[in-house]
This record gives sequence, C-alpha cells and structure tokens, in this order.
Amino acid sequence: MRAVVMRDGALVVDEVSLPALQPGQVRAEVLACGICGSDLHALHHADRMVEMSELTAEPGGIAPRMMDPSRDVVMGHEFTARVLEVGPNVGNCTPGDVVVSLPVVMDAGGIHAVGYSNDYPGGYGQQIVLSDMLTMKVPDGLDPELAALTEPMAVGLHAVEMSRVSPRHAAVVLGCGPVGLAVVAALALAGVETIVAADFSPARRALAATMGATEVVDPSVEGAVAAWRRVEGRKPLVIFEAVGVEGMLDAAMVDAPRGSQILVVGVCMVPDRIRPMVAVGKELNLQFVLGYDPLQFQTTLNRIAEGSLDVSPMITGRVDLDGVAQAFSALGDPEAHAKILVVPS
Amino acid sequence: MRAVVMRDGALVVDEVSLPALQPGQVRAEVLACGICGSDLHALHHADRMVEMSELTAEPGGIAPRMMDPSRDVVMGHEFTARVLEVGPNVGNCTPGDVVVSLPVVMDAGGIHAVGYSNDYPGGYGQQIVLSDMLTMKVPDGLDPELAALTEPMAVGLHAVEMSRVSPRHAAVVLGCGPVGLAVVAALALAGVETIVAADFSPARRALAATMGATEVVDPSVEGAVAAWRRVEGRKPLVIFEAVGVEGMLDAAMVDAPRGSQILVVGVCMVPDRIRPMVAVGKELNLQFVLGYDPLQFQTTLNRIAEGSLDVSPMITGRVDLDGVAQAFSALGDPEAHAKILVVPS
Repeated sequence: MRAVVMRDGALVVDEVSLPALQPGQVRAEVLACGICGSDLHALHHADRMVEMSELTAEPGGIAPRMMDPSRDVVMGHEFTARVLEVGPNVGNCTPGDVVVSLPVVMDAGGIHAVGYSNDYPGGYGQQIVLSDMLTMKVPDGLDPELAALTEPMAVGLHAVEMSRVSPRHAAVVLGCGPVGLAVVAALALAGVETIVAADFSPARRALAATMGATEVVDPSVEGAVAAWRRVEGRKPLVIFEAVGVEGMLDAAMVDAPRGSQILVVGVCMVPDRIRPMVAVGKELNLQFVLGYDPLQFQTTLNRIAEGSLDVSPMITGRVDLDGVAQAFSALGDPEAHAKILVVPS
Repeated sequence: MRAVVMRDGALVVDEVSLPALQPGQVRAEVLACGICGSDLHALHHADRMVEMSELTAEPGGIAPRMMDPSRDVVMGHEFTARVLEVGPNVGNCTPGDVVVSLPVVMDAGGIHAVGYSNDYPGGYGQQIVLSDMLTMKVPDGLDPELAALTEPMAVGLHAVEMSRVSPRHAAVVLGCGPVGLAVVAALALAGVETIVAADFSPARRALAATMGATEVVDPSVEGAVAAWRRVEGRKPLVIFEAVGVEGMLDAAMVDAPRGSQILVVGVCMVPDRIRPMVAVGKELNLQFVLGYDPLQFQTTLNRIAEGSLDVSPMITGRVDLDGVAQAFSALGDPEAHAKILVVPS
C-alpha cells in the first residue's frame, strides 16, 4: 500500500507493506487521519521522544516498544478506518465496520504505539492494522472525518478530568492549538462558566470562542490571568498550559494566583527552567497529564456522535498522501490552520 | 536588649530596641529559639528572598512587609517566650504565660514576618513583641525548649496534610534535615506504614529512624524509590522532596513511579532545571507547600505536649546569643547537628 514514510527526517510517499494479521487483529482502510503537533515535533526531534520514553519507563513495567527513528516510521494516530479483514479470535469488529481505536496495537511480541512504531504503520497510509479489542465502532450517521477528532478531543477531556476543576472553578487555557481547543471544549461540557482562552492568533482565538471559551485574550495585550481577574476573579482558578514551549511553565507559575492548580498539557520536549520558590510561595499544584483512558475516548466519540461536541470548526484542511509534507509546513501558521486531515484514498 | 543582628551579611551581637507595644500586642522574654535552615540561607542570600517575595505577591493581596536586607534584621521565628507585659486590647495572654506564636505580628501599619522584619526583632534576642491573637499557650509541664520545635514540626504536618497521603499509601522522604524529619514524624502519626527516608549522613538517617522512618537509605548506596520497591512497591507512592538544592526535583521526577505525587517541601531558592516531558510521561503531580495554618500549629503543639510527638532527639545543641554565629557554621555538618536552640538568657 501507499503511505507517507518518515525517513531521515523527511516525509516521503512510498510503498509500505502491512504486517500479517495476528490473532485479535484487524486490517482496515484509513478513511481520515488528523495531523498531530506531536508528529511535527517527531519529524525533527524523534531522538528526544526516544530519550523521554527511556526516562519514563518503569522498572519491570509494560510500555509500548519505542520506534527506532533511524528506520522507517509511518506516523498518524488520530484515525477513522473501515474494517476490511479480521484475523483469528476477533469478536468486536466485522468487515465493513467503521471504527476509531486507541492508537495502540498488541501482538505476541508486545505492544506498539500506532504512529510511532517501526512495525505497525499509522494512519498516514492507505491501510492499518489494529487490535480488535481497542477499536470502537463509529455510530451510524457520524461523518468519519469528525470521528477522527476523537483522539485529540479525548486529550482535552482527560486533562479536565485529571484537574480539580468543577463548576465552582474558573479556568484559564494558555494556547489555542488543537490541545488547548480540546481543553476548552471539555471545560464547557463540564459546566465551567468562566473559560478564558489566550492565543496570539486571532483565528485561534475565534476558534476558542466557537469551542466554548467565554473570554478570549491576546497575551500581547492582556494576560490571561489578568483577564480572569477582570471578568471573574472570585472562583478559584485552574490553569491549563497548552503551549509547551520553554519558559511557558515558569511564566504561568508567576501569573498563577495563590493556591491554584496548573495542568501541564502542552508538551515541552526540552529541559525547562522554573523558579521553584515562586511555586512554593504560592503553594501551587502542578498536574502533568498525557493521553486519556478508554472510557474518556469512548465518551468523546459519543459526544461527537450525539452533537454535544461539534468538532467541525476545527477541521481547516484536507490533504491526500502526497499533500502531507506540505500540510506539515502549513500547520506552522496558526492563522491558516488548526487540524488538517489526511484522506489517503 | 541584646540580640543577634544580621548586618552586612554577618551576625553580630548588639543592643537593639523593641518597638513600643501597640494595641493587641504583648512583650515577652525569649526562652528558646530554633535556628532554621532558611535563616542560614537568608544570611547570604537575603536578596533572593526579597525577589521571591515580590514574585509571589498577589495583586491587591495582603502579604507581610518584606525586610530590607541592607538594614538590621534580628532573625529567629521558632521560639517559645514568657509574656512580660501586655498592651491595650489583649485578651489572650497574661504576664507569666509561656507561649509560642505564629511568626507574624500585626500593627496599624500592616503585617510583619517575625524573624524577617526590620521593625520587629525575632527570637535571636532577649525579648520579642508578638500579636496576642496569634499566640498559643504552652501547656503546663511542657519544656519550653521542646515547645520551640512547634514551628518546624508544623511544617511537616502541613506538608503531609497538603499531600494525598493516607494509610493506603507509602511515602519516601528525600533529605533528613529538620524539615524532612518533621515530615517523617507527621507521616508516622498519619498512620503511614512504609516511610523510606534518605540522607547521605548516618546521623541524620539514625534520627529519621528515631522519628518514625521504617526504612532508611544512603542514596549513594540505594535510591529511595528503589528501596520502596524493595520493601513495599505495591501501595501508591507519595514523595516528599525535602532537600531543596538544584537538580533534586528533576532527579525525583526521574525516579518517581507513574502517577505518583511529589511534595516539594525543600526550598530551592535558585532557578532550577526540570524535564517536563518526564513528568508528562508519568502524569506526575507536584504539590509545592509552604508553612502551615493555625490549626496545624496548634495540633503540633498539642502533640508535643501530649508526648505523641517526641522532638527531643532533634535538639542537638544549645547556644547563647554569643554562640549563634558559630552555630550557623556548625549546622553545616549534618553529622553533628539537626536543630540548635538559641537560649538568650
């Protein structure tokens, strides 16, 4: 099959073979796959992802086998696919089902992160192999392209559920990329009445308002925490840091009110400098978050299907496999794009 | 009165005058005052404390007026004192009462941190002015020297109460200085059954065992988290970082098991480097803590008085005012000392 291959730090379209189906696996045709910011990062800094994977490994624990970036990788972990063939011992899927899946696949050799694996191609290809038990059926009538947003939107739900936020809190979201927007949407669905979202990009701020932010600010004009003080300032504050570049965490700590919680959702891949005394002096709580659990994934799919979570405004572009490399560049402009979908066929 | 004055980065014994009593204040004779690690730091890096005070100030908030380190300061905030004279509108104290107090004093001009103020001398002097409403009577029969440990031990209780620790958790305490020892003691009283304490100093490890650690380790031989895996390893872990030097937080994050909480109790006064991706990958929670509340202070005093909290092993020396400068140096050797009390008279 054809796929977009990460090879020597570049993206090339090439012929790729799928692994043979093992028990519990299914083969599916990719209908749509979102491009994730982590993929942009991986293209140039895969070594850092590998290093971090090693640093966070538990002694004796089970973790996905990490890719070797010197070998070919087909990325893409935000996908919807139609089942073509089922292997032995499959009880969930039947051919023809349209499914999403947790981006993990298991086999006799261990577990593999779909999209960051040398063995299992991800969603930037025409076909994909999945673990039957980790798939979830896309309800009839739901556009497969909207269903492909299940994965990134589940990240927002997870961050909100890992926080202490409730309707008696206010929230600030720093950064309105797809992760920040997913957080905004999950906060709105959690009943949080004051959601201040900050981004330098007018287009991103407009998207944040569409997704549920009650106040949007340009940080070059007004700080997000200052805006919270202006519009609300009484309810305790939970801050979601969804930018993930050096210095953002320290800046959030300096701005944070006493006793507040900062959810670290943005992925800063490089060592960062903080001033612990700032956090000590204000008794801040920092909760670092990653991913989601299967229930949060299913809940997000249900919300998209039922219409309580409208992700259509986030989809700003569609490309075929030959357009992926260009789409990676285009995503550097927040005015132009939020989520670009790869439609392989 | 005579007092130990911090002047130009040195400690000198000099004559100091007390401020005149204002309404709600009492004058008292200092019976004993512990030397705190923060005082050792302040002697050489008072500028950093001032900077951090400014960084953590809330817009419109009430905070103690910060000292000007270029002017005289009498430090000492862990004291027991006997009331000599009461000012107007005092309803709590009567002359002769032996008291401890939250190290804060209020007057018409604002609030002042006792021990870090240019206006109110701290406990490294013969007498002290206190706010009547912040004093707590030392129960009859309790040695005033033991009562002087109320303040540092309350820090440990506060850290434990701010954590998620419960008897279903295990705990690791990194660093067995007075703060780490206070945490160990509070954990034992909270019913935590596995308390692993780590320190390079054999004397400090012995003290930790005395105060309630169930396992003590020399980090040059075995890491504290590795020891937890060896002795327990099943209950979820809460880590108390009570060292507070550069690099300790990052090292604790690398060692921490997935989903664990790190209480940052040690006070790292300088900017520090962390790798956020390590914390993201393990979904760590960092709770920074400072001080205590009045109930925790009172609870700690009660525990010392009732005997459930025996602080006597922590007192490793006593000096008069002329011995304070030397005691500051002596505290650099963890083998020799934990807590040195200043007994001014």
